[in-house]
Amino acid sequence: MADPRFFRLAGPFTVAELAARIGAELAGAADPARVILDVAPLDRATRDHLSFLANDAYRAAFRNSRAGALIAHPDAVADAPPEAALLVTAAPYRAFALAAQAFYPEPPPLAGIAPSAVVDPTAQLGEGCAVEPNAVIGARVEIGRRCQIGANAVIGPGCVLGDDVRVGANASLSHCLIGSRVRLYPGVRIGQDGFGFDYNPSGFAKIPQLGRVIIQDDVEIGANTTVDRGAGPDTVIGQGTMIDNLCQIAHNVTIGRLCVLQAQVGISGSTRLGDHVVIQGQGGLMGHLTIGDRAKIGAQCGVMKSVPADAAMLGSPAQPIQDFFRQMSWLARAAKRRGS
Amino acid sequence: MADPRFFRLAGPFTVAELAARIGAELAGAADPARVILDVAPLDRATRDHLSFLANDAYRAAFRNSRAGALIAHPDAVADAPPEAALLVTAAPYRAFALAAQAFYPEPPPLAGIAPSAVVDPTAQLGEGCAVEPNAVIGARVEIGRRCQIGANAVIGPGCVLGDDVRVGANASLSHCLIGSRVRLYPGVRIGQDGFGFDYNPSGFAKIPQLGRVIIQDDVEIGANTTVDRGAGPDTVIGQGTMIDNLCQIAHNVTIGRLCVLQAQVGISGSTRLGDHVVIQGQGGLMGHLTIGDRAKIGAQCGVMKSVPADAAMLGSPAQPIQDFFRQMSWLARAAKRRGS
Amino acid sequence: MADPRFFRLAGPFTVAELAARIGAELAGAADPARVILDVAPLDRATRDHLSFLANDAYRAAFRNSRAGALIAHPDAVADAPPEAALLVTAAPYRAFALAAQAFYPEPPPLAGIAPSAVVDPTAQLGEGCAVEPNAVIGARVEIGRRCQIGANAVIGPGCVLGDDVRVGANASLSHCLIGSRVRLYPGVRIGQDGFGFDYNPSGFAKIPQLGRVIIQDDVEIGANTTVDRGAGPDTVIGQGTMIDNLCQIAHNVTIGRLCVLQAQVGISGSTRLGDHVVIQGQGGLMGHLTIGDRAKIGAQCGVMKSVPADAAMLGSPAQPIQDFFRQMSWLARAAKRRGS
Repeated sequence: MADPRFFRLAGPFTVAELAARIGAELAGAADPARVILDVAPLDRATRDHLSFLANDAYRAAFRNSRAGALIAHPDAVADAPPEAALLVTAAPYRAFALAAQAFYPEPPPLAGIAPSAVVDPTAQLGEGCAVEPNAVIGARVEIGRRCQIGANAVIGPGCVLGDDVRVGANASLSHCLIGSRVRLYPGVRIGQDGFGFDYNPSGFAKIPQLGRVIIQDDVEIGANTTVDRGAGPDTVIGQGTMIDNLCQIAHNVTIGRLCVLQAQVGISGSTRLGDHVVIQGQGGLMGHLTIGDRAKIGAQCGVMKSVPADAAMLGSPAQPIQDFFRQMSWLARAAKRRGS
Repeated sequence: MADPRFFRLAGPFTVAELAARIGAELAGAADPARVILDVAPLDRATRDHLSFLANDAYRAAFRNSRAGALIAHPDAVADAPPEAALLVTAAPYRAFALAAQAFYPEPPPLAGIAPSAVVDPTAQLGEGCAVEPNAVIGARVEIGRRCQIGANAVIGPGCVLGDDVRVGANASLSHCLIGSRVRLYPGVRIGQDGFGFDYNPSGFAKIPQLGRVIIQDDVEIGANTTVDRGAGPDTVIGQGTMIDNLCQIAHNVTIGRLCVLQAQVGISGSTRLGDHVVIQGQGGLMGHLTIGDRAKIGAQCGVMKSVPADAAMLGSPAQPIQDFFRQMSWLARAAKRRGS
Repeated sequence: MADPRFFRLAGPFTVAELAARIGAELAGAADPARVILDVAPLDRATRDHLSFLANDAYRAAFRNSRAGALIAHPDAVADAPPEAALLVTAAPYRAFALAAQAFYPEPPPLAGIAPSAVVDPTAQLGEGCAVEPNAVIGARVEIGRRCQIGANAVIGPGCVLGDDVRVGANASLSHCLIGSRVRLYPGVRIGQDGFGFDYNPSGFAKIPQLGRVIIQDDVEIGANTTVDRGAGPDTVIGQGTMIDNLCQIAHNVTIGRLCVLQAQVGISGSTRLGDHVVIQGQGGLMGHLTIGDRAKIGAQCGVMKSVPADAAMLGSPAQPIQDFFRQMSWLARAAKRRGS
């Protein structure tokens, strides 16, 4: 059971209720009325727990699990322990996500404005919003319903937020328009000036950064990640995209829908990502590139040229992943064979 | 036109006024009294707008632009559309920067101390300073004129800031002396302890970090960048240097004048950069190195040895850029030719 | 002498007192009652100062130093200037650390809760704690004795901190249990959701992150570093580990005792480090790996496979360091010899 200092357990649920909630078929001999109290890992689950198999590396633990109920793919049913109620689905990890959300629903914001928060009188907040202590909300800000503005967060003048947005502690926003169900983790920086100036040996001249940051619905942006506003065009993050901690999104970057950026990724100015692009940790993209839909950019990859749709790249400079590994293994053999 | 939620448009200006402000020669047949209302990109500008050509990739858009006024290099005059007023200069990007600053001047700080700010009674603030809500200013801090201290920013005891400094929301400063016209973006961390201790299998002994951070005039430091104070000597950032988001500047580092550090660069302890050094995104420098004036360190470059003036380096470990590309292309060909 | 704006000098101490404090043998002809006022570098020290030799690169400066007292290894005694009192020890750098701590002791927290801090009535604070202006402490938080909670820091509901913990300005903590003598630098983010969800072309389903962050005694975590809480298991940072600025520690990561992570390191989910592991700047580790005790991971190294104890790795992908250098030098020679 999750630490009750931090998490509240809902339920219990019967196996039948869980099957309905997660869209799984009930299988095996178990009683649909069997009561499940909590989720647990395969090896620690007991008769009161729900667990799951989503990765074949855990097949043995699945076979031996004492869980009262198990989520599994149809292919795994034959291996299931006989005592478990089976919840069979083609997407067991997603089904587990839904089940875990049922047992540990996220508490809604505790509506109300903390007395220490500073909310400009011209700001508008929808119903059900929570503004935590010492948060600062600037002039003409518009915030939708049921938003949570974390302690010590700062929302600069004129920003617009949709419904059900969560802004983490100590985050700061300016010059941005944000959709609904967006989550900005603690320390996120949205909307500051892009890094734009005229290079010149006698000193730099700053180019006014006159664009905004547009964040579409359902986006998550990880802790201490920075997203600069556009120089003229906007910086845009597409619907449903997930961005991890400590990433850098430069001015004018456009990211498509349902992309995944792992931690410490950096994207330089004006680069455009299609939909479903995945960039692994510490990957870096130069500016003014185009990355096609569903491209996969590996960890620490350094992308200097545009990448077509569906490509998988690795290395710095980036190459198709097979070329990269072929070169690395050829080099290892050649250096060994011919001595050093 | 930039979003009026966030930007205020100044002007209008006549073509003659703009030419004078940006130091350009008026050319072409246009009336010097023609009125310009705003800046716009080449392809969206109309008769009321000023646009510019600073990159030959946009030469066709320049030719076809309907802008009322165009900034261009003397070489581009022959290609200019006949209707446009031409503002001719050898430095068109810089001239556009100045024009954009004229149309969108940065508003001065709104002088005054927010009631929720906590300013130590021994702190001294010059005239015209704005201290935003919930900012915290410690004992004996000295702040010059017309500075802006962002919401929830923290200025630790004894820090000294010059005139016209802007400290972003949620930034924190300690143990530092800061010049004039410096900009610290949101979430910047200046002056915390350097990473100095005696390694030892039985536990680490911390070396007191007794230096400061010195930031000279006209420096910009990007969002969530960290600059540690020196261990004994100071950490120094030279006049006019531009540092992007999420960079790490370790203790005792000395950076010269007018350097450019792109996002996610890391510089290890005691390394010294000359003037006009450029480090591209995610570049990393080991400690105790010397980087000569005007050296260029490429993206993701890993610098393990000192670099002479005017060198251009790439790769990890860093090599002269031609050597790096020659090796990469040789390797690609060799691995292909000889099979895998 | 360190800038008195920021540092307070203690002492003076006699040479005999210093020898006792740092566990060194007094040698040479000097009077044990000689009074030392401060520490200084070898080349700037005068008769009133203590300096040290811990790195042979400075042997010449040591020979010529005019310091009144010098810490040195027994091997260096023969090279010492004749006027100096010698403090001889097998661990001169550690001895200097202790001496510098004696001259510049860290001031204890100034006990008291700032009027602008927001402390939930159900939070418990031990004696001698300092809560700085605008800090926010949530419900049911438990904080030990003599802790310092920096200005604008946020401690989320239910967090537990031991004794003598220091939380920097603008840091934020949630879902964590923290030992004693832990230091969290400004802007640290502890305990936010790990990056866990079901990938799916139709949208992502978030996996509730039901674990915590456990930080053992004597850990330091650098500015703007992020540590996500576990997905079910906890994220754990072992006793005495030192983490520099801008690092990313993902969910379920376990770090052993007395490890060193330099700046901008990233560790992906569920990876486990043994004890005494060192990772240099910008190193990156994939998820679900095991890194053995005392392994050394070089700067910018990209670790894709588990690493045995005592290994030294470099390159991306990581290789044993000798293999990496052999390949790099072979490639350089081959590309040169055979032309481009």
